[in-house]
Amino acid sequence: MRIALDAMGSDRAPAIEVEGAVGALLSLDGDFQLVLVGDQPRIEAELARFPEAPRERIEIVHAPQRIEMGEPPAQAIRRKPDSSIVVGLALQKQGEVDAFISAGSTGAVMAGSLVLLRPLPGVDRPAIGALLPTRHGRILLLDAGANIDTRPHHLVQFAHLGTIYARNLMGIEEPRVGLLNIGEEPEKGDERALEAHRLLAASTSLHFVGNIEGRDIIEDKCDVVVCDGFVGNVLLKFYESVATFIVGLFRAELEAANADLDISRIIQVLDYTEYGGAPLLGVNGVTIICHGGSPPRAVRNAIRVAVQAVESQVVAHIQTRLAAAQPNP
Amino acid sequence: MRIALDAMGSDRAPAIEVEGAVGALLSLDGDFQLVLVGDQPRIEAELARFPEAPRERIEIVHAPQRIEMGEPPAQAIRRKPDSSIVVGLALQKQGEVDAFISAGSTGAVMAGSLVLLRPLPGVDRPAIGALLPTRHGRILLLDAGANIDTRPHHLVQFAHLGTIYARNLMGIEEPRVGLLNIGEEPEKGDERALEAHRLLAASTSLHFVGNIEGRDIIEDKCDVVVCDGFVGNVLLKFYESVATFIVGLFRAELEAANADLDISRIIQVLDYTEYGGAPLLGVNGVTIICHGGSPPRAVRNAIRVAVQAVESQVVAHIQTRLAAAQPNP
Repeated sequence: MRIALDAMGSDRAPAIEVEGAVGALLSLDGDFQLVLVGDQPRIEAELARFPEAPRERIEIVHAPQRIEMGEPPAQAIRRKPDSSIVVGLALQKQGEVDAFISAGSTGAVMAGSLVLLRPLPGVDRPAIGALLPTRHGRILLLDAGANIDTRPHHLVQFAHLGTIYARNLMGIEEPRVGLLNIGEEPEKGDERALEAHRLLAASTSLHFVGNIEGRDIIEDKCDVVVCDGFVGNVLLKFYESVATFIVGLFRAELEAANADLDISRIIQVLDYTEYGGAPLLGVNGVTIICHGGSPPRAVRNAIRVAVQAVESQVVAHIQTRLAAAQPNP
Repeated sequence: MRIALDAMGSDRAPAIEVEGAVGALLSLDGDFQLVLVGDQPRIEAELARFPEAPRERIEIVHAPQRIEMGEPPAQAIRRKPDSSIVVGLALQKQGEVDAFISAGSTGAVMAGSLVLLRPLPGVDRPAIGALLPTRHGRILLLDAGANIDTRPHHLVQFAHLGTIYARNLMGIEEPRVGLLNIGEEPEKGDERALEAHRLLAASTSLHFVGNIEGRDIIEDKCDVVVCDGFVGNVLLKFYESVATFIVGLFRAELEAANADLDISRIIQVLDYTEYGGAPLLGVNGVTIICHGGSPPRAVRNAIRVAVQAVESQVVAHIQTRLAAAQPNP
């Protein structure tokens, strides 16, 4: 198995990516090779810092261009064919690698994946799945920002995508699917939610458990929660900032009281980097999107997720499922 | 000034309401009287527990019916004319009281306010304003759930409502208004957000600071953030649950380490009950909506907010403002 890693994506690329890559090769199980895509001399220079790196499992593919965070995604993909994102995704398209990971511009990774990998048949809108920490585990939220102005049947597709991902990557045999909404009753919600509820409830191949309110997200009432990408994106970013805020309140109070408390377990529970990036589900390939501010550990975990996604054949499973589900407007 | 308090609203009514009312009368400044609306014998029985209560400032208006949480709001308002919510709002309509507070069914309080008090001219959709704790203070989020399927010009009306409220009740002379969105750039967002951004930016009477992402909400980048009630409601409920969750993580860790830390300041920062309920802005009157699970302190604080709202003439200011703003589709 070969995994391509955009070495130029993160805020501190390529140092973060190279360190994460070496960490993954040394610590993770699985017979995989890494293809580092980006500025070859800079990647070589970073790699030189790790004499312990198993160089026989690392390949570098030179990509001199870099797509910046602010660039309009579709345009950037067209105008920068030698960017690490386009080159990495093209490697997957050509079958040279089995997955692509990037901490670069989410919009560009998404646009590139749509253009180069293409959506799977039966998927109108590939969705970003984000794992959020809950009281007793985690929940897969999708869409986390790939799609806005979605229609109700798109949320049904998200439910299928999430079900397969939760089964293959989270090990949940029959994932419970919830619909993010503003009330528990089926008759609650905006036009999209009302119709999505009806469609989800009518599906025989989903384990739909009904509406999930904002307060229920962390209460483990379901394994997969579907929503439009607008609210999903707002929620995801809000969660990260609120967690940082509240942990900061406690840190300040502990410091003021000169109290010593090991909060590493709490940090670990709340740390998104533990989850190793968000998959773009529904394209014909494996694309994992990481935070621009990812530390090396997040990159290593994203590689772990990519390996699992390839091993568990998540794309083939989605393909079979969506062909059977025949989701129509 | 006379404030009507629905004594039958909360999960533990009327005990909570009566205790909160007595606390308000004994502790708050201002020359106000309270009208407790609900089951007279039960209210009397609760009041008997507080011999220190200034009875000359308390009146009881009997209302034998109670609207339950699950009832369809509009129907409940029609079918239960002797409910504490309808009676209390009718008192305000008749000019017998200056404000109405309830911890009962949010939907019923809203429906009743719309029917009995009526929206102010220029307000298509009255909105619920919720105060959320931020890093350095608090932010007014509206709409927090009164309106779904809003149109862009509704968000502009929310911006005006929030501006007046923040000026009168939060003491901010020129409140900064943000639009909740999934990116900072004006060209980001769904159809509603794109058009709302354009309308807000074109307004000369608002201090519009642009788009606010999920991660910016607690960063004090604005004083008022406007959004559709679907995402506002999800966010509000999510925030409360996440705060409880994370505080719980710390409590468990402190307990496990047998560590002693006074976390009362943190609790106070994060506690919604400090803010005393959410106003329904844009109706011709003062309606304050409390959490069903409110403790007496939240009721007391809601009374404080109601007194401030009446004193600062927030309704008259909204009326003048909206007449001048001439918000059109």
